[in-house]
Amino acid sequence: MKLFRFGEPGKEQPGVIIGDTKYDVSAFVKDFDEEFFAGNGLDELWELVLNNTATLPLVSDDTRIGPPVKRPGKIICIGLNFRDHAIETNAPIPTEPIVFFKATSAICGPNDNVVIPKNSVKTDWEVELAVVIGKKASYVNESDAHKHIAGYVLHNDYSEREFQLERGGQWVKGKSCDTFAPLGPYLLTPEGVDVDNLKMWLTVNGQIMQNSNTSQLIFKVPFLIHYLSQFMTLHPGDIISTGTPHGVGLGFKPPIYLKPCDVVELGIEGLGSSKQIAVAYKA
Amino acid sequence: MKLFRFGEPGKEQPGVIIGDTKYDVSAFVKDFDEEFFAGNGLDELWELVLNNTATLPLVSDDTRIGPPVKRPGKIICIGLNFRDHAIETNAPIPTEPIVFFKATSAICGPNDNVVIPKNSVKTDWEVELAVVIGKKASYVNESDAHKHIAGYVLHNDYSEREFQLERGGQWVKGKSCDTFAPLGPYLLTPEGVDVDNLKMWLTVNGQIMQNSNTSQLIFKVPFLIHYLSQFMTLHPGDIISTGTPHGVGLGFKPPIYLKPCDVVELGIEGLGSSKQIAVAYKA
Repeated sequence: MKLFRFGEPGKEQPGVIIGDTKYDVSAFVKDFDEEFFAGNGLDELWELVLNNTATLPLVSDDTRIGPPVKRPGKIICIGLNFRDHAIETNAPIPTEPIVFFKATSAICGPNDNVVIPKNSVKTDWEVELAVVIGKKASYVNESDAHKHIAGYVLHNDYSEREFQLERGGQWVKGKSCDTFAPLGPYLLTPEGVDVDNLKMWLTVNGQIMQNSNTSQLIFKVPFLIHYLSQFMTLHPGDIISTGTPHGVGLGFKPPIYLKPCDVVELGIEGLGSSKQIAVAYKA
Repeated sequence: MKLFRFGEPGKEQPGVIIGDTKYDVSAFVKDFDEEFFAGNGLDELWELVLNNTATLPLVSDDTRIGPPVKRPGKIICIGLNFRDHAIETNAPIPTEPIVFFKATSAICGPNDNVVIPKNSVKTDWEVELAVVIGKKASYVNESDAHKHIAGYVLHNDYSEREFQLERGGQWVKGKSCDTFAPLGPYLLTPEGVDVDNLKMWLTVNGQIMQNSNTSQLIFKVPFLIHYLSQFMTLHPGDIISTGTPHGVGLGFKPPIYLKPCDVVELGIEGLGSSKQIAVAYKA
């Protein structure tokens, strides 16, 4: 099942995609938020959709798509989780997951503009597979991890490299700018998804920059859920972004960063694609 | 005005403290959350309380106190913001603020037990002044920063030093464990508060460990709001924890860490005090 949200920023409504058709399910579901995932929301929704497909209102293709999850509690990101990306950034291959947070205020729709922050000269891209938690997870075994997954979603973990690496201390300054977390186009529920073998790619102005496969992840999804749940409780709706492969702007010699009007497109097999146009910050 | 929340974890209701009396304001206010602060909540509440003090239900002193803000969007922490604390941890004095996030799932009531995580041997304390954002802040001038403050609150930024410093990468692993962010007893609105001159202290089993004053902060509250708002939008309800002074367990030679049954008490002048008993993790 594919869940998505549509409408103006901050006023999105829940919907479901079947085949190429987008259905409005706001008559049945308040929103795709912590409460929805914590309850029996996904199962009930599936039933409702199956029984009402003929009468559900349609969502037109020109309606804006928002992020598929409303106000998650946290976005946990895994750093340097692809060998070739660790190498391109001159970092050692991690022996255990590197973990950082991204502000949830950075979340936007999959095709919204990415705003280059004021005074930014190093805005960079990162195609990533993100996992949405479906069920509270604390000290979870790797073999039980799949029970805690609501679904998967495409994420572009935008990163301002000067803010991240040259402004003292931790990485959050370069990871949390507004619009730096376009999520979607939809959340794909996990049944039948071979999450360890999904092609992923990213282009800038049509030129391929990242081209890899989730098979190359150093730490896989079930291990990450197990691992993170040793340090904090994962709540329904929380997002884990699993890391990016080789091909970020920072890795080029000389580095390449985004400028206004650049077009970034990305996709993951089965999770759809998204497209952001870079724009300068305007007050 | 002092705002607090009372009742069982996850089911807290909003209240107001006047003098020593705790009033239940749940008939007038849904909760102290992002929506409340974003609206005209604080002003309207003040009016309501003034006009209804005689008839408001009271909250008894044996009722559990929860954190004074419901599910904030983020907790932003400032690292090494006291000179003497930077020195005790063998870190250089920061030339600009060190910023990290703490998971909001770590939030608990001010007098709840602090749970020593499974496999933790280095659970440490940090008394801190936290600021609650009242109004959206993006690229804010230092001179306007005060307009974005809803109030101040006492915070113990519990930290597992092995998870934070010896497990690879960033600090979040040691900052985000459940119960590692007791907030309260109340949020104090800013009118008449000299935030740059508040005594702060922390004891373990009655022995004074931290004893300082917010006058010693390297980066002051208005600058922090200005600074952070260059990297991300601060939303109503967001929390900024401004850093801890000298006297954490890590700084002792040899270091001192919490064990079950230890009693941690802390306070900040005008913001009240809190008390946590350390307990071992139990499934």
